[in-house]
Order: sequence, then structure tokens, then C-alpha cells
Amino acid sequence: MTRVHNFSAGPAALPEPVLRQAAAEMLDWRGSGMGVMEMSHRGPEFMGIHAEAQALLRSLMGIPPHYKTLFMQGGALAENAILPLNLLNGRRRGRASADYIDTGIWSQKSIAEARRYGVVNVAASAADNGYTRVPDRASWRLDPDADYVHICSNETIGGLEYATEPDVGAGADGPPLVADMSSSILSRPVDVSRYGCIYGGAQKNIGPAGLTIVIVREDLIGHAQPATPTAFDYRVVADNDSMFNTPPTWAIYIAGLVFQWIQAQGGVAAMAERNAAKAALLYGALDASGLYTVPVAPGHRSRMNVVFRLRDERLDAPFLKGAQERGLSQLKGHRSVGGMRASIYNAMPIEGVQALVDWLREFERVHG
Amino acid sequence: MTRVHNFSAGPAALPEPVLRQAAAEMLDWRGSGMGVMEMSHRGPEFMGIHAEAQALLRSLMGIPPHYKTLFMQGGALAENAILPLNLLNGRRRGRASADYIDTGIWSQKSIAEARRYGVVNVAASAADNGYTRVPDRASWRLDPDADYVHICSNETIGGLEYATEPDVGAGADGPPLVADMSSSILSRPVDVSRYGCIYGGAQKNIGPAGLTIVIVREDLIGHAQPATPTAFDYRVVADNDSMFNTPPTWAIYIAGLVFQWIQAQGGVAAMAERNAAKAALLYGALDASGLYTVPVAPGHRSRMNVVFRLRDERLDAPFLKGAQERGLSQLKGHRSVGGMRASIYNAMPIEGVQALVDWLREFERVHG
Repeated sequence: MTRVHNFSAGPAALPEPVLRQAAAEMLDWRGSGMGVMEMSHRGPEFMGIHAEAQALLRSLMGIPPHYKTLFMQGGALAENAILPLNLLNGRRRGRASADYIDTGIWSQKSIAEARRYGVVNVAASAADNGYTRVPDRASWRLDPDADYVHICSNETIGGLEYATEPDVGAGADGPPLVADMSSSILSRPVDVSRYGCIYGGAQKNIGPAGLTIVIVREDLIGHAQPATPTAFDYRVVADNDSMFNTPPTWAIYIAGLVFQWIQAQGGVAAMAERNAAKAALLYGALDASGLYTVPVAPGHRSRMNVVFRLRDERLDAPFLKGAQERGLSQLKGHRSVGGMRASIYNAMPIEGVQALVDWLREFERVHG
Repeated sequence: MTRVHNFSAGPAALPEPVLRQAAAEMLDWRGSGMGVMEMSHRGPEFMGIHAEAQALLRSLMGIPPHYKTLFMQGGALAENAILPLNLLNGRRRGRASADYIDTGIWSQKSIAEARRYGVVNVAASAADNGYTRVPDRASWRLDPDADYVHICSNETIGGLEYATEPDVGAGADGPPLVADMSSSILSRPVDVSRYGCIYGGAQKNIGPAGLTIVIVREDLIGHAQPATPTAFDYRVVADNDSMFNTPPTWAIYIAGLVFQWIQAQGGVAAMAERNAAKAALLYGALDASGLYTVPVAPGHRSRMNVVFRLRDERLDAPFLKGAQERGLSQLKGHRSVGGMRASIYNAMPIEGVQALVDWLREFERVHG
């Protein structure tokens, strides 16, 4: 068996120890005589797995007690509707409206879907700078009466990331900050108390596709629009401890193993250090080259999704072919933007990044 | 390692060969150097897994070409809203209304949720017979203008099952028949052309929790209510081959392995024979006893979920304790009804049912 270095943007590489444990426990979880996929979600075995995953996530992220942690389904794209169905409700000033910041394709998907459920004000857009920088906080035209302010913390396709958490006065009387953290959750410490809601699909830094994490401040729950499907009403999900409908049990089990692995690595702060080192190594090599370009401005570059291009796109095919031959997999950029993308989430070891850097240099020696 | 006989109602036992293969391929799927959980859903490896699972399901069920097969998320409880959001739309006569048949707790959940999206007419209810029989077809007060007629083919909690498919004139000009088949899909042949839509959570006869199967006639698609989240609009899901949002890739992979296993067993007709034999063995033992009672009338009993009671409920605890000691697991009835329930889905071998029958007789010899 030879494992590749897997740079997929999601679903993405998982830590090998997690996969080994999952394989070993497949037919018999800890002497129960059942695999995890076969357990009733209401039995003591799975209830324990579920509770431990919840507790570990809370501990890793330092989630305050007045936040609920929900395990849901449908990914961030479904959440683009579920979130406004729950939070875009005019509860603050009697007028359902929200501010959204546009930093790229994922922001735009969120904006388009939210517009189906209420008024959306695009308070700032990176369109003005060609999506190379997160709009300066001072330029945001925020509505003090908005139900919330929505950001995408890391644009998986464009490779743009907030370097720091924007201050919108959340926690005070202002609109709460809401963040799609699908591709950056658990990659660095976050002050959860600065957010009203954090959500994300699991299939980047957490586990398999099919699990959505929602962390939401309790006082924001309970005001869902009437059309909200009961299974997606944060109030119902919270009151039933994420077991109103049958939860995605296997995905929660794997997420729990990933949380254990992160803890064993030293927690989120240690992951952040490793991620910073990996990103510095890769961007450093790209910037030092004459063959490769990075469209995103320094200080705004994603530590998770490193987007780059070859100066001559006719070199894309031989670059990818040679990479594949060297066990460097899934480097092709998103079909909507082309070029290359190396996703280097928590589970990507620095050795994988070094192998990619070696290939970047080798390819440039021949084609530069 | 000792595997138990697992009578869980769902998530439920999976075929051992499926689990063994999943464990063996966990770190490296067929030389790809990646596990299935780690693959991009848009890469050739997973696209192949997805296409094969779709094709196998269509072949096993004999799904006609003018039906779409959708892989969704949220389970039957979410689908209780998603279905009316898509099909309860007044497209037939300009008046959004649907007929529902009440055969138990799952029907009632469907009814309560559908009422949030339009007019629901309960055209017949087993309440009149204490939920011991499916209401006689002649007694159904159907509305010829309804958008659809909804049934629950098998009541997982009550243990009531339709022995034959009711004729509501679907396929002709009448309202299409819609069925929640969560706990009976693939357990016996079904004439899909008699239905407008069949849906179900995967976690009984198909695979892990977190995958919902929707089989829907093409002409019914495309009329969703405006509040429908885009990720749950049958039109969008169908047009994107179930990849508008990231699909639950692992669950689809396991479902595909289960479909292969069913095919290797001789297909759905062979499963139906085995299931009939298993149910006959178990109900026969219960009926021959003076200690156990079956609330559901013969001819209406579920072949999947065998609900029974001990005449003296003080015997429940020692019965369950002795069962557990003999490797007969998860026999406790649903918390809402009490008593016992033995779920004997496709993956339960007749040896498991025989072991339960042996225990029923042994326990009766001591306590009868």
C-alpha cells in the first residue's frame, strides 16, 4: 500500500491513525460485537461516542457554555438556507435583513441563497480589488439594525482568508458575527465569544462529508421562519441534543477520532503553528519562483488552500502529470477558476508540503 | 472478536462482507493511495463509486428511466418537510393539498410536518382498529384533486406493514402514490411505476445513517415551493446528479457495497424469500407461545420489525438480560411503545432469528 500526498480541497486527507483505528474497529467497536455504523443512535455505545465528540469539540475550541453545538446534515450549501431560515428574522429591529461580506465564490453562494429568505445588504466586496484582498474593515457599510453580519472566514476556491477576526461589535448590542468556517475550523484558535454563529461542513478539517457543525449562541435560537423544516430548526436540534432525526453516526464517530488526534498533537494552537509553517514553506517557494504566481495578496492568503498558477497554462498538464507520478494528488484548481490549488489542512504533514515544494523546484528547473 | 446478533431498528446490522471490505479499503481504495472518505467527490474515483451505486440501485429495484434517483441528506424526518416542499404545490388542480394514510407513529410524524406546508387530508387511519391493521383500501376517502397520496409502507415502531401495494390509480390521471419506505426498501420487489415518489433513510436496509434515497418520477419535479432550500430542491439535486452540495460520500460507498451484496445474494426477490422465511419462523414461534403476544393482526405484520410483548412486563428485564448474555442485542421496543422489537432486515441471517427463537423458547420454559 502506498499512500499519496492528497491535496484535495474536500473531502480531504484524514490523519492515518484515525483511518487505522476506524478500520480496526469496523466489525467490533470495543467489544460491543457491533461496528459503529450498526449501532442504534439511542444505545449507550453511540450516545457515549456522540457525547465525547461534542465535549472534545467544545474543549478544543473553547466554546463558552452559552453556545450550543449542533451536529447537522447538508453541508455548508444547505446551511446557506438553514442559517437565514433560523437567524434572518427581524428579531433585532423588526426588519429581516442581514449584512454579508463578499470575499469570493463561497460568499456569493451564501448571499444568493440568503436573498431567498430576506433582505441582504452586501456591506463590502472584494470585487473592487479582484478578490485579492479581504476588504478593509473600515470600508464595511454595516447596518446597525441587521440580524447578523456574515463572513466566509476562508474562501476555499479563491484562496483568500481573514488574517484576524473582524470586530463588528458582537457580544455588545451590535449584530452578531456569523462565519462560514468550513475550510478553516480547528486550523487555528478562534475566540468563539466574538461570534453569534459558526458553521461548516466537516469534510475539510474534521471528517467525512455528510456532517455539518453549527455552533450558535443560545439567545439567537428559537426565532426560526415558519417555513423552516423541523429537522433544521436550531431550537429543535438543540433541544434534542442533535438527535431529532437520526444523526450521521459514522461521520460523528470519525469526527470524534479526529478531535482526539488534534488533542494529541497539542490542540488547536499547535495545529496553527504547524499550519503557519506549512503555508510559509509553500508560499515562500512560490514567491521565490519565476514560473509560478499567487493571485492573492500577502497578508490575505489562505493557510489552508494555496491557490497558484503557472505563468504558461500550457504547462498545467505536464505539471499535474509529473505531480501525480510523484504521489502528489488532486492539485488541479477548482473548475471555475482553473490553475492549481494545494489544500493543506490539519492532516497534511509538512513532509507532504516539502514533497510538493521539491516538485515545484524540479519542474521549474526543466520548464522555467 | 465476537459479533452479536444485532436486532437494532436502525442504524442496523450490515452484512459482514461489506464491513470487511470497507475495513480493508480504508487507507487505500483499489490502489488510489486514498481512502474513500478522503476523495474529492468530483474526482474520477468517487464519481465511479457514485455512478455504480446509482446504477446498482436502479437495476435492483427495476427503476424505470423516467424516474430520477437522488442521494440526499437528513433522513426521513427531514424528507417529511422536503417532500411537501417539492410536491405539495397545487400543480394538479391549483389547490395545494395531499392525502395521507395514518398507520402509526411514522405516518403521524409525516402528517404533522406536511401540515406546515399545505392542506393535509387524513384519508384513512388505523386509529380505528388500534393500529393493528392497515386500513382497508375500500375505506380510504381519497381526494381526486390531491397532489399526492402518502403512505408509510412499513411502520418501524408499530410493526405494521402493507402486504401489497395499494392501488390509487397512480400512473393514470390520479394523484401519484408517495411512500416512505425507510424500513422496507429493498426487502422485497416493488413495482416502482406504481409510485410517484419513494423515499427513505438508508440506515435500515441500505447502509449508514446520513444518506436519504429519493426515487421520483421526472414529471413531478420542478414545482418546489419558494421557501425550499436550494440544496433540497429535487430539480437542483437531479440536475446536478446529487452533487449540488457535497454528497455523503462514505455512506454512498457503503450503500454501493450493500447493493453489490444484495445482487450477489440473488437480488431483491431472493431477499424477499429469505425475509419471508425469517418472519414466518419468528412469528410462528411467538404465536405458538402462551408467554408472548403480537399486537398486530396476521396479514398486516411487518416482515422487518417484529413487535411483541411479554404477557407480564415484569419479565421484560430478565428477558432482555438473558438475551444480551446470549449475544442477542438491541431487542428493547421503542421507548414510545415499550415491549420488544426484533428488527430483522436483509442483513440479519436466519441463524440470528433461530437463535432468538431458541431463546424465546428457553425463557418460556422457565417463566411460562
